[in-house]
Amino acid sequence: MATLLDVTDPADPRLADYRDLRDVELRKALEAEHGLFLAEGEKVVRRAVEAGYRPRSFLMAPRWLAGLADVLGTTDAPCYVVSEAMAEQVTGFHVHRGALASLERQPLPSLDEVLAGARWQRAPEDVVDHTDNGARADTTDEGPARSSVRIAVLEDLVDHANVGAAFRSAAALGIDAVLLSPRCADPLYRRSIKVSMGAVLHVPWTRLDPWPAGLDALSARGITLAGMSLSSDSVDLDALSAQGHRWLALVFGTEGVGLTLETARRCDLLVRIPMARGIDSLNVAAASAVAFYATR
Amino acid sequence: MATLLDVTDPADPRLADYRDLRDVELRKALEAEHGLFLAEGEKVVRRAVEAGYRPRSFLMAPRWLAGLADVLGTTDAPCYVVSEAMAEQVTGFHVHRGALASLERQPLPSLDEVLAGARWQRAPEDVVDHTDNGARADTTDEGPARSSVRIAVLEDLVDHANVGAAFRSAAALGIDAVLLSPRCADPLYRRSIKVSMGAVLHVPWTRLDPWPAGLDALSARGITLAGMSLSSDSVDLDALSAQGHRWLALVFGTEGVGLTLETARRCDLLVRIPMARGIDSLNVAAASAVAFYATR
Repeated sequence: MATLLDVTDPADPRLADYRDLRDVELRKALEAEHGLFLAEGEKVVRRAVEAGYRPRSFLMAPRWLAGLADVLGTTDAPCYVVSEAMAEQVTGFHVHRGALASLERQPLPSLDEVLAGARWQRAPEDVVDHTDNGARADTTDEGPARSSVRIAVLEDLVDHANVGAAFRSAAALGIDAVLLSPRCADPLYRRSIKVSMGAVLHVPWTRLDPWPAGLDALSARGITLAGMSLSSDSVDLDALSAQGHRWLALVFGTEGVGLTLETARRCDLLVRIPMARGIDSLNVAAASAVAFYATR
Repeated sequence: MATLLDVTDPADPRLADYRDLRDVELRKALEAEHGLFLAEGEKVVRRAVEAGYRPRSFLMAPRWLAGLADVLGTTDAPCYVVSEAMAEQVTGFHVHRGALASLERQPLPSLDEVLAGARWQRAPEDVVDHTDNGARADTTDEGPARSSVRIAVLEDLVDHANVGAAFRSAAALGIDAVLLSPRCADPLYRRSIKVSMGAVLHVPWTRLDPWPAGLDALSARGITLAGMSLSSDSVDLDALSAQGHRWLALVFGTEGVGLTLETARRCDLLVRIPMARGIDSLNVAAASAVAFYATR
């Protein structure tokens, strides 16, 4: 059971993990230095603990304790109990979802661990047998069998909300794993987690390093790399879907300029979402939802 | 030519349109009272003026004047020239896109005006001839002929970013018009415009009032109302696409709870985007992009 500790001094050093949550640069530095991340709201806090992240501490007003009693019962981390005014004073904003937790980051899994995680819900032969004639039963205990493994690759997204949105859509539309370039915005940043509705806590993901050479490891494993791009070389998204790749990685570039040339050159093909002329293109979060849907 | 006026007092009453841009409630009240909206950044300011919105004034630091010289040449509105520090002091944030304009809102068009706008890019018979056998040439000067008119209807979205994202995707994916419930967040709020990349300035839109009875006016015009919902009555999105409606309205509900019962009852059918089990659903911005793509 977590230890409940009343804290009345906003300068109390034990609250250091929760300071100035709206200051992105400060938080990035603090969270990297201490290997922590913040979960916000009863639902996300619960999901983070259930996903196996170890709590460093909790911070909440008294009225949120009851709802999280079961979660607090699973840990011996301290739970700092503060007034709502003080929570606002420490964090720098009105904590309307009530509960906060500081959790320890885990070492990022290897690519092979993530790909193994991507396979967990299908029979091994559904993944590795490229001679499969498609005649297998089309349902399993898990529901309709899925004929392909699909991975999203995010190159250098800057915006935490876009990273979170891509994870949320990935979870909803059955993407098996997410791979990030080393400079892509952090999925465990508070805003990413929130926008993802907690999907970053259960969709398997890691970073590909070095970049973009790390993409070669996907090609070496027989995964088709499809780069999303409005280039004149691109095929329409429907054409990609019709090709029916068993292992497919959909690669999305950064906001604004899209894929780097070095990444585009490593893709097996480039794919466009057909758009009205004169339009700047879809936002990367919208584009990823469309591509996840169209290749399902 | 706009009149350039140096302003050095941040309390100058002529800057009232630009105060406290981060205070959503204050801005809503101020913009409604004075019938104005704010455009931010050279590109959006230009698009707003080109779209026919009349500038009340401009506010910018000297280094942004040259880029907007052509736009300033088309109006006699005042242009307040201030230091970047003062722009930040007045607006409450760092104006990194440089130029701001305050513009007059226009009366909202009627439903029929918006629907007429939705038809502008096709031959009349492409819209009204329900006996068309599909044998017409499939290209025109405008590119591939489109066989249907598609309208997005947004019910009570709360988040300006979601409204902006829906408009951006609507523009990119060829949606012809957008209709909003009376309580749906304002497309001309600064954040909506920004997230939409200016699409709210050129996609035809209006509000349907009264709500939801106003939807009956769509039905009366032969428009099929398809409500996006995870209800057990819903058909899959692909089934809707296969039906090939000539006039189709895709109706999206508010964040979180989705369509109201009253709106769902007015829909001709309900439509779901198939999702992984146990997932809370797509964000409305992602769902709209998927639905716009799938029904194109």
